[in-house]
Amino acid sequence: MTKPAVVLLSGGLDSATCLAIARRDGFDPHAISFRYGQRHENELDCARRVADHLGVAKHVVVDINLGQFGGSALTSEIAVPKHDSIDQIDDAIPVTYVPARNTVFLSLALAWAETLDARDIYIGVNALDYSGYPDCRPAFIEQFQRLANLATKVGVESDDDAIKIHAPLIDLTKAEIIAQGLKLGVDYGLTLSCYDPADGQPCGHCDACLLRNKGFAENDLTDPSLAG
Amino acid sequence: MTKPAVVLLSGGLDSATCLAIARRDGFDPHAISFRYGQRHENELDCARRVADHLGVAKHVVVDINLGQFGGSALTSEIAVPKHDSIDQIDDAIPVTYVPARNTVFLSLALAWAETLDARDIYIGVNALDYSGYPDCRPAFIEQFQRLANLATKVGVESDDDAIKIHAPLIDLTKAEIIAQGLKLGVDYGLTLSCYDPADGQPCGHCDACLLRNKGFAENDLTDPSLAG
Repeated sequence: MTKPAVVLLSGGLDSATCLAIARRDGFDPHAISFRYGQRHENELDCARRVADHLGVAKHVVVDINLGQFGGSALTSEIAVPKHDSIDQIDDAIPVTYVPARNTVFLSLALAWAETLDARDIYIGVNALDYSGYPDCRPAFIEQFQRLANLATKVGVESDDDAIKIHAPLIDLTKAEIIAQGLKLGVDYGLTLSCYDPADGQPCGHCDACLLRNKGFAENDLTDPSLAG
Repeated sequence: MTKPAVVLLSGGLDSATCLAIARRDGFDPHAISFRYGQRHENELDCARRVADHLGVAKHVVVDINLGQFGGSALTSEIAVPKHDSIDQIDDAIPVTYVPARNTVFLSLALAWAETLDARDIYIGVNALDYSGYPDCRPAFIEQFQRLANLATKVGVESDDDAIKIHAPLIDLTKAEIIAQGLKLGVDYGLTLSCYDPADGQPCGHCDACLLRNKGFAENDLTDPSLAG
Protein backbone atom coordinates (compact mmCIF):
# COMPACT_ATOMS: atom_id res chain seq x y z
CA MET A 1 0.00 0.00 0.00
CA THR A 2 1.19 3.49 -0.83
CA LYS A 3 2.20 5.53 2.21
CA PRO A 4 0.34 8.78 2.87
CA ALA A 5 2.14 12.12 2.95
CA VAL A 6 0.73 15.53 3.79
CA VAL A 7 1.58 18.21 1.21
CA LEU A 8 1.13 21.93 1.85
CA LEU A 9 -0.57 23.30 -1.25
CA SER A 10 -0.97 27.04 -1.72
CA GLY A 11 -1.96 27.16 -5.37
CA GLY A 12 1.39 28.69 -6.30
CA LEU A 13 4.14 27.37 -8.52
CA ASP A 14 6.37 25.99 -5.76
CA SER A 15 3.79 23.94 -3.89
CA ALA A 16 2.37 22.51 -7.14
CA THR A 17 5.87 21.30 -8.00
CA CYS A 18 6.25 19.93 -4.48
CA LEU A 19 3.03 17.93 -4.83
CA ALA A 20 4.29 16.42 -8.09
CA ILE A 21 7.56 15.49 -6.34
CA ALA A 22 5.69 13.80 -3.45
CA ARG A 23 3.87 11.66 -6.02
CA ARG A 24 7.10 10.86 -7.82
CA ASP A 25 8.60 9.84 -4.45
CA GLY A 26 5.86 7.20 -4.21
CA PHE A 27 3.59 8.80 -1.62
CA ASP A 28 -0.18 9.05 -1.63
CA PRO A 29 -0.52 12.83 -1.29
CA HIS A 30 -2.99 14.44 1.12
CA ALA A 31 -3.10 18.14 0.29
CA ILE A 32 -3.72 20.86 2.89
CA SER A 33 -4.48 24.49 2.06
CA PHE A 34 -5.26 27.43 4.32
CA ARG A 35 -7.82 30.21 4.22
CA TYR A 36 -5.80 32.48 6.50
CA GLY A 37 -7.17 35.89 5.77
CA GLN A 38 -5.02 36.32 2.67
CA ARG A 39 -6.06 39.01 0.19
CA HIS A 40 -5.58 36.66 -2.68
CA GLU A 41 -8.17 33.96 -2.02
CA ASN A 42 -7.92 33.14 -5.72
CA GLU A 43 -5.01 30.98 -4.70
CA LEU A 44 -7.43 28.53 -3.08
CA ASP A 45 -9.20 28.04 -6.43
CA CYS A 46 -5.78 27.38 -7.93
CA ALA A 47 -4.98 24.91 -5.13
CA ARG A 48 -8.18 23.00 -5.92
CA ARG A 49 -7.39 22.91 -9.64
CA VAL A 50 -3.82 21.77 -9.01
CA ALA A 51 -5.04 19.04 -6.61
CA ASP A 52 -7.51 17.80 -9.25
CA HIS A 53 -4.94 17.95 -12.02
CA LEU A 54 -2.11 16.12 -10.22
CA GLY A 55 -4.38 13.85 -8.15
CA VAL A 56 -4.59 13.65 -4.36
CA ALA A 57 -6.17 11.21 -1.91
CA LYS A 58 -7.86 14.12 -0.13
CA HIS A 59 -7.69 17.92 -0.09
CA VAL A 60 -8.63 19.87 3.04
CA VAL A 61 -8.90 23.65 3.34
CA VAL A 62 -8.35 24.80 6.91
CA ASP A 63 -9.71 28.14 8.08
CA ILE A 64 -7.49 30.18 10.37
CA ASN A 65 -7.93 33.89 10.54
CA LEU A 66 -4.37 35.17 10.82
CA GLY A 67 -5.81 38.50 9.66
CA GLN A 68 -7.24 39.06 13.15
CA PHE A 69 -3.66 39.51 14.36
CA GLY A 70 -2.77 41.98 11.57
CA GLY A 71 0.84 42.83 10.80
CA SER A 72 1.29 41.76 7.18
CA ALA A 73 0.63 43.17 3.73
CA LEU A 74 -0.82 39.78 2.75
CA THR A 75 -3.53 39.84 5.41
CA SER A 76 -4.22 43.51 6.11
CA GLU A 77 -4.48 46.90 4.47
CA ILE A 78 -0.72 47.42 4.21
CA ALA A 79 0.14 47.82 0.51
CA VAL A 80 2.00 45.04 -1.32
CA PRO A 81 5.31 46.53 -2.61
CA LYS A 82 5.65 46.74 -6.39
CA HIS A 83 8.80 47.07 -8.47
CA ASP A 84 9.67 47.59 -12.12
CA SER A 85 12.47 45.06 -12.05
CA ILE A 86 13.83 42.27 -9.90
CA ASP A 87 16.98 44.27 -9.04
CA GLN A 88 14.84 46.55 -6.88
CA ILE A 89 14.05 43.75 -4.40
CA ASP A 90 16.31 44.24 -1.38
CA ASP A 91 17.48 41.74 1.25
CA ALA A 92 15.31 42.93 4.15
CA ILE A 93 12.34 40.89 5.35
CA PRO A 94 9.47 42.52 3.40
CA VAL A 95 6.05 43.66 4.64
CA THR A 96 4.50 40.68 2.85
CA TYR A 97 5.99 38.48 5.59
CA VAL A 98 3.10 36.90 7.53
CA PRO A 99 4.12 36.44 11.18
CA ALA A 100 4.89 32.80 11.96
CA ARG A 101 2.97 31.62 8.90
CA ASN A 102 4.97 28.51 8.04
CA THR A 103 5.14 27.55 11.74
CA VAL A 104 1.34 27.68 11.89
CA PHE A 105 0.91 25.85 8.57
CA LEU A 106 3.41 23.09 9.41
CA SER A 107 1.81 22.64 12.85
CA LEU A 108 -1.58 22.03 11.29
CA ALA A 109 -0.05 19.74 8.65
CA LEU A 110 1.57 17.84 11.53
CA ALA A 111 -1.76 17.49 13.35
CA TRP A 112 -3.34 16.01 10.22
CA ALA A 113 -0.33 13.79 9.51
CA GLU A 114 -0.53 12.32 12.98
CA THR A 115 -4.20 11.40 12.62
CA LEU A 116 -3.52 9.91 9.16
CA ASP A 117 -0.56 7.98 10.54
CA ALA A 118 1.56 9.77 7.93
CA ARG A 119 5.23 10.31 8.76
CA ASP A 120 6.04 12.59 5.84
CA ILE A 121 5.20 16.23 5.25
CA TYR A 122 6.13 18.12 2.07
CA ILE A 123 6.55 21.89 1.98
CA GLY A 124 7.58 23.88 -1.09
CA VAL A 125 9.77 26.49 0.60
CA ASN A 126 12.78 27.67 -1.29
CA ALA A 127 15.68 29.67 0.01
CA LEU A 128 17.26 30.93 -3.20
CA ASP A 129 14.82 32.87 -5.38
CA TYR A 130 12.57 33.83 -2.48
CA SER A 131 11.31 36.87 -0.66
CA GLY A 132 13.63 36.66 2.36
CA TYR A 133 11.15 35.17 4.85
CA PRO A 134 12.86 33.63 7.92
CA ASP A 135 10.56 30.60 7.88
CA CYS A 136 11.71 29.49 4.42
CA ARG A 137 15.31 28.73 5.43
CA PRO A 138 16.88 25.27 5.89
CA ALA A 139 17.60 25.94 9.59
CA PHE A 140 13.90 26.56 10.22
CA ILE A 141 12.83 23.37 8.45
CA GLU A 142 15.41 21.25 10.32
CA GLN A 143 14.29 22.73 13.62
CA PHE A 144 10.64 22.07 12.86
CA GLN A 145 11.45 18.44 12.14
CA ARG A 146 13.15 18.15 15.55
CA LEU A 147 10.11 19.73 17.19
CA ALA A 148 7.69 17.44 15.34
CA ASN A 149 9.48 14.39 16.69
CA LEU A 150 9.23 15.69 20.27
CA ALA A 151 5.68 16.99 19.95
CA THR A 152 3.80 13.94 18.82
CA LYS A 153 2.85 10.48 19.96
CA VAL A 154 4.43 8.87 16.90
CA GLY A 155 7.63 10.87 17.36
CA VAL A 156 7.94 9.97 21.02
CA GLU A 157 7.10 6.30 20.57
CA SER A 158 9.42 5.76 17.59
CA ASP A 159 13.13 6.07 16.95
CA ASP A 160 14.67 9.43 16.14
CA ASP A 161 13.06 11.37 13.36
CA ALA A 162 10.04 9.18 12.64
CA ILE A 163 8.55 12.32 11.13
CA LYS A 164 10.30 13.85 8.13
CA ILE A 165 9.77 17.36 6.81
CA HIS A 166 10.62 17.26 3.12
CA ALA A 167 11.57 20.57 1.49
CA PRO A 168 12.70 19.33 -1.92
CA LEU A 169 12.88 22.81 -3.49
CA ILE A 170 14.91 24.45 -0.78
CA ASP A 171 18.19 24.62 -2.74
CA LEU A 172 16.73 25.15 -6.20
CA THR A 173 16.43 28.34 -8.22
CA LYS A 174 12.99 29.25 -9.53
CA ALA A 175 14.18 28.21 -13.02
CA GLU A 176 15.25 24.78 -11.72
CA ILE A 177 11.93 24.33 -9.91
CA ILE A 178 10.00 25.07 -13.12
CA ALA A 179 12.22 22.74 -15.17
CA GLN A 180 11.66 19.93 -12.66
CA GLY A 181 7.91 20.51 -12.50
CA LEU A 182 7.57 20.49 -16.28
CA LYS A 183 9.30 17.09 -16.40
CA LEU A 184 6.77 15.82 -13.85
CA GLY A 185 3.82 17.13 -15.87
CA VAL A 186 2.83 20.16 -13.78
CA ASP A 187 0.53 22.54 -15.66
CA TYR A 188 1.72 25.92 -14.39
CA GLY A 189 -1.19 27.59 -16.14
CA LEU A 190 -3.30 26.38 -13.20
CA THR A 191 -1.10 28.09 -10.60
CA LEU A 192 -1.00 31.65 -9.27
CA SER A 193 1.98 33.10 -7.40
CA CYS A 194 1.07 36.82 -7.28
CA TYR A 195 0.68 38.51 -3.86
CA ASP A 196 -1.85 40.98 -5.22
CA PRO A 197 -3.85 39.60 -8.15
CA ALA A 198 -6.81 41.47 -9.67
CA ASP A 199 -9.61 39.31 -11.10
CA GLY A 200 -7.36 36.28 -10.80
CA GLN A 201 -4.66 37.87 -12.97
CA PRO A 202 -1.12 38.43 -11.63
CA CYS A 203 0.00 42.05 -11.10
CA GLY A 204 3.41 41.42 -12.67
CA HIS A 205 5.24 43.72 -10.28
CA CYS A 206 5.28 42.16 -6.80
CA ASP A 207 8.26 40.10 -5.61
CA ALA A 208 6.44 36.84 -6.34
CA CYS A 209 5.58 37.86 -9.91
CA LEU A 210 9.09 39.12 -10.66
CA LEU A 211 10.73 35.94 -9.32
CA ARG A 212 8.28 33.75 -11.23
CA ASN A 213 8.78 35.63 -14.50
CA LYS A 214 12.55 35.32 -14.13
CA GLY A 215 12.16 31.55 -13.63
CA PHE A 216 10.18 31.13 -16.84
CA ALA A 217 12.47 33.48 -18.78
CA GLU A 218 15.51 31.42 -17.75
CA ASN A 219 13.77 28.36 -19.21
CA ASP A 220 13.11 30.34 -22.42
CA LEU A 221 9.40 30.15 -21.68
CA THR A 222 6.56 32.58 -21.14
CA ASP A 223 4.52 32.21 -17.95
CA PRO A 224 1.47 30.17 -19.06
CA SER A 225 -0.76 31.90 -16.49
CA LEU A 226 -0.35 35.08 -18.55
CA ALA A 227 -1.20 33.33 -21.80
CA GLY A 228 -4.93 33.44 -21.66
CA MET B 1 5.39 51.01 29.80
CA THR B 2 4.46 47.46 30.72
CA LYS B 3 5.65 44.91 28.21
CA PRO B 4 3.04 42.73 26.49
CA ALA B 5 3.05 38.95 26.85
CA VAL B 6 0.79 36.43 25.15
CA VAL B 7 -0.79 33.93 27.54
CA LEU B 8 -2.50 30.72 26.40
CA LEU B 9 -5.76 30.56 28.31
CA SER B 10 -7.91 27.43 28.20
CA GLY B 11 -10.30 28.14 31.06
CA GLY B 12 -8.70 25.42 33.16
CA LEU B 13 -6.85 25.63 36.45
CA ASP B 14 -3.32 25.60 35.05
CA SER B 15 -3.71 28.36 32.48
CA ALA B 16 -5.57 30.60 34.96
CA THR B 17 -2.61 30.25 37.34
CA CYS B 18 -0.24 30.94 34.47
CA LEU B 19 -2.07 34.17 33.62
CA ALA B 20 -1.78 35.30 37.24
CA ILE B 21 1.96 34.53 37.13
CA ALA B 22 2.44 36.55 33.93
CA ARG B 23 0.83 39.54 35.69
CA ARG B 24 2.99 39.02 38.76
CA ASP B 25 6.05 38.92 36.47
CA GLY B 26 5.13 42.45 35.37
CA PHE B 27 3.72 41.76 31.92
CA ASP B 28 0.60 43.17 30.31
CA PRO B 29 -1.18 39.90 29.46
CA HIS B 30 -2.82 39.30 26.09
CA ALA B 31 -4.87 36.12 26.41
CA ILE B 32 -5.46 33.70 23.53
CA SER B 33 -7.99 30.86 23.58
CA PHE B 34 -8.93 28.34 20.92
CA ARG B 35 -12.22 26.98 19.64
CA TYR B 36 -10.67 23.83 18.20
CA GLY B 37 -13.57 21.47 17.93
CA GLN B 38 -13.35 20.45 21.60
CA ARG B 39 -16.39 18.75 23.12
CA HIS B 40 -16.18 20.95 26.17
CA GLU B 41 -16.80 24.42 24.75
CA ASN B 42 -17.79 25.46 28.26
CA GLU B 43 -14.10 25.99 28.78
CA LEU B 44 -14.27 29.07 26.54
CA ASP B 45 -16.87 30.63 28.87
CA CYS B 46 -14.50 29.88 31.73
CA ALA B 47 -11.62 31.46 29.80
CA ARG B 48 -13.67 34.65 29.35
CA ARG B 49 -14.54 34.77 33.05
CA VAL B 50 -10.94 34.16 34.09
CA ALA B 51 -9.71 36.87 31.70
CA ASP B 52 -12.25 39.34 33.15
CA HIS B 53 -11.43 38.37 36.72
CA LEU B 54 -7.64 38.57 36.47
CA GLY B 55 -7.57 41.37 33.90
CA VAL B 56 -6.05 41.26 30.42
CA ALA B 57 -5.21 43.89 27.81
CA LYS B 58 -7.07 41.84 25.19
CA HIS B 59 -8.57 38.36 24.84
CA VAL B 60 -8.86 36.70 21.42
CA VAL B 61 -10.59 33.42 20.66
CA VAL B 62 -9.15 31.78 17.55
CA ASP B 63 -11.21 29.27 15.57
CA ILE B 64 -9.36 26.24 14.25
CA ASN B 65 -11.26 23.10 13.52
CA LEU B 66 -8.87 20.36 14.65
CA GLY B 67 -11.98 18.15 14.73
CA GLN B 68 -11.89 17.91 10.94
CA PHE B 69 -8.71 15.82 11.31
CA GLY B 70 -10.27 13.50 13.94
CA GLY B 71 -8.09 11.25 16.05
CA SER B 72 -8.78 12.41 19.63
CA ALA B 73 -11.38 11.76 22.31
CA LEU B 74 -11.46 15.53 22.93
CA THR B 75 -12.52 16.38 19.39
CA SER B 76 -14.38 13.33 18.09
CA GLU B 77 -16.77 10.58 19.10
CA ILE B 78 -14.11 8.49 20.88
CA ALA B 79 -15.18 8.15 24.55
CA VAL B 80 -13.25 9.99 27.27
CA PRO B 81 -11.81 7.35 29.67
CA LYS B 82 -13.23 7.41 33.20
CA HIS B 83 -11.73 5.95 36.38
CA ASP B 84 -12.82 5.49 39.97
CA SER B 85 -9.46 6.53 41.36
CA ILE B 86 -6.25 8.21 40.26
CA ASP B 87 -4.27 4.96 40.61
CA GLN B 88 -6.05 3.64 37.54
CA ILE B 89 -4.42 6.23 35.26
CA ASP B 90 -1.57 4.50 33.41
CA ASP B 91 1.56 5.96 31.81
CA ALA B 92 0.55 5.52 28.17
CA ILE B 93 -0.40 8.53 26.04
CA PRO B 94 -4.21 8.53 26.40
CA VAL B 95 -6.92 8.88 23.73
CA THR B 96 -7.60 12.40 24.99
CA TYR B 97 -4.30 13.44 23.38
CA VAL B 98 -5.08 15.91 20.59
CA PRO B 99 -2.53 15.50 17.78
CA ALA B 100 -0.01 18.34 17.78
CA ARG B 101 -2.30 20.57 19.84
CA ASN B 102 0.29 22.55 21.75
CA THR B 103 2.39 22.94 18.61
CA VAL B 104 -0.62 24.46 16.86
CA PHE B 105 -1.55 26.64 19.86
CA LEU B 106 1.99 27.92 20.43
CA SER B 107 2.36 28.66 16.71
CA LEU B 108 -0.72 30.85 16.75
CA ALA B 109 0.39 32.50 20.00
CA LEU B 110 3.71 33.20 18.29
CA ALA B 111 1.98 34.76 15.29
CA TRP B 112 0.07 37.10 17.58
CA ALA B 113 3.13 37.84 19.73
CA GLU B 114 5.05 38.90 16.66
CA THR B 115 2.40 41.35 15.52
CA LEU B 116 2.13 42.76 19.09
CA ASP B 117 5.92 43.06 19.28
CA ALA B 118 5.73 40.81 22.36
CA ARG B 119 8.75 38.64 23.08
CA ASP B 120 7.17 36.54 25.83
CA ILE B 121 4.66 33.69 25.63
CA TYR B 122 3.23 31.93 28.69
CA ILE B 123 1.88 28.38 28.57
CA GLY B 124 0.53 26.48 31.57
CA VAL B 125 1.86 23.04 30.71
CA ASN B 126 2.96 20.84 33.55
CA ALA B 127 4.93 17.64 33.41
CA LEU B 128 4.26 16.16 36.84
CA ASP B 129 0.55 15.74 37.57
CA TYR B 130 -0.44 15.55 33.94
CA SER B 131 -2.00 13.18 31.44
CA GLY B 132 1.21 12.06 29.74
CA TYR B 133 0.94 14.21 26.61
CA PRO B 134 4.26 14.52 24.71
CA ASP B 135 3.76 18.24 24.07
CA CYS B 136 3.70 19.09 27.79
CA ARG B 137 7.31 18.09 28.48
CA PRO B 138 10.27 20.44 29.07
CA ALA B 139 12.11 19.16 25.97
CA PHE B 140 9.15 20.15 23.80
CA ILE B 141 8.97 23.67 25.25
CA GLU B 142 12.72 24.23 24.87
CA GLN B 143 12.57 23.05 21.28
CA PHE B 144 9.63 25.32 20.50
CA GLN B 145 11.58 28.30 21.84
CA ARG B 146 14.47 27.46 19.52
CA LEU B 147 12.06 27.20 16.60
CA ALA B 148 10.36 30.51 17.49
CA ASN B 149 13.69 32.30 17.33
CA LEU B 150 14.42 30.88 13.87
CA ALA B 151 10.90 31.30 12.54
CA THR B 152 10.25 34.96 13.07
CA LYS B 153 11.50 38.35 12.00
CA VAL B 154 12.18 39.40 15.59
CA GLY B 155 14.03 36.16 16.33
CA VAL B 156 16.23 36.48 13.25
CA GLU B 157 16.96 40.18 13.67
CA SER B 158 17.79 39.95 17.41
CA ASP B 159 20.35 38.12 19.49
CA ASP B 160 19.77 34.53 20.55
CA ASP B 161 16.45 33.78 22.17
CA ALA B 162 14.72 37.12 21.77
CA ILE B 163 11.51 35.13 22.16
CA LYS B 164 10.98 33.31 25.44
CA ILE B 165 8.45 30.53 26.04
CA HIS B 166 7.61 30.63 29.76
CA ALA B 167 6.24 27.43 31.28
CA PRO B 168 6.23 28.41 34.97
CA LEU B 169 4.20 25.37 36.09
CA ILE B 170 6.26 22.74 34.33
CA ASP B 171 7.96 21.39 37.46
CA LEU B 172 5.09 21.90 39.90
CA THR B 173 2.63 19.37 41.27
CA LYS B 174 -1.07 20.18 40.92
CA ALA B 175 -1.13 20.97 44.65
CA GLU B 176 1.75 23.44 44.27
CA ILE B 177 0.07 25.08 41.29
CA ILE B 178 -3.13 25.60 43.29
CA ALA B 179 -1.21 26.93 46.32
CA GLN B 180 0.61 29.42 44.11
CA GLY B 181 -2.55 30.52 42.33
CA LEU B 182 -4.40 31.08 45.58
CA LYS B 183 -1.59 33.38 46.77
CA LEU B 184 -1.97 35.36 43.53
CA GLY B 185 -5.74 35.66 43.99
CA VAL B 186 -6.98 33.19 41.37
CA ASP B 187 -10.64 32.26 41.84
CA TYR B 188 -10.64 28.58 40.86
CA GLY B 189 -14.42 28.54 41.04
CA LEU B 190 -14.33 30.24 37.62
CA THR B 191 -12.23 27.48 36.03
CA LEU B 192 -13.14 24.12 34.51
CA SER B 193 -10.62 21.32 33.93
CA CYS B 194 -12.91 18.40 33.06
CA TYR B 195 -12.53 16.68 29.66
CA ASP B 196 -16.20 15.72 29.54
CA PRO B 197 -18.42 18.12 31.49
CA ALA B 198 -22.21 17.92 31.42
CA ASP B 199 -24.11 21.22 31.75
CA GLY B 200 -20.86 22.92 32.73
CA GLN B 201 -20.32 20.55 35.68
CA PRO B 202 -17.19 18.35 35.91
CA CYS B 203 -17.66 14.58 35.50
CA GLY B 204 -15.36 13.82 38.46
CA HIS B 205 -13.89 10.70 36.82
CA CYS B 206 -11.72 11.72 33.86
CA ASP B 207 -7.94 12.14 34.27
CA ALA B 208 -8.27 15.93 34.49
CA CYS B 209 -10.91 15.76 37.26
CA LEU B 210 -8.97 13.19 39.27
CA LEU B 211 -5.71 15.16 39.09
CA ARG B 212 -7.50 18.39 39.99
CA ASN B 213 -9.30 16.83 42.95
CA LYS B 214 -6.01 15.42 44.23
CA GLY B 215 -4.46 18.90 44.04
CA PHE B 216 -7.21 20.49 46.11
CA ALA B 217 -7.22 17.59 48.60
CA GLU B 218 -3.47 17.99 49.14
CA ASN B 219 -4.14 21.65 50.04
CA ASP B 220 -6.88 20.50 52.46
CA LEU B 221 -9.44 22.21 50.23
CA THR B 222 -12.52 21.22 48.31
CA ASP B 223 -12.63 22.11 44.61
CA PRO B 224 -14.63 25.38 44.54
CA SER B 225 -16.07 24.55 41.11
CA LEU B 226 -18.00 21.74 42.80
CA ALA B 227 -19.29 24.03 45.55
CA GLY B 228 -22.32 25.44 43.78
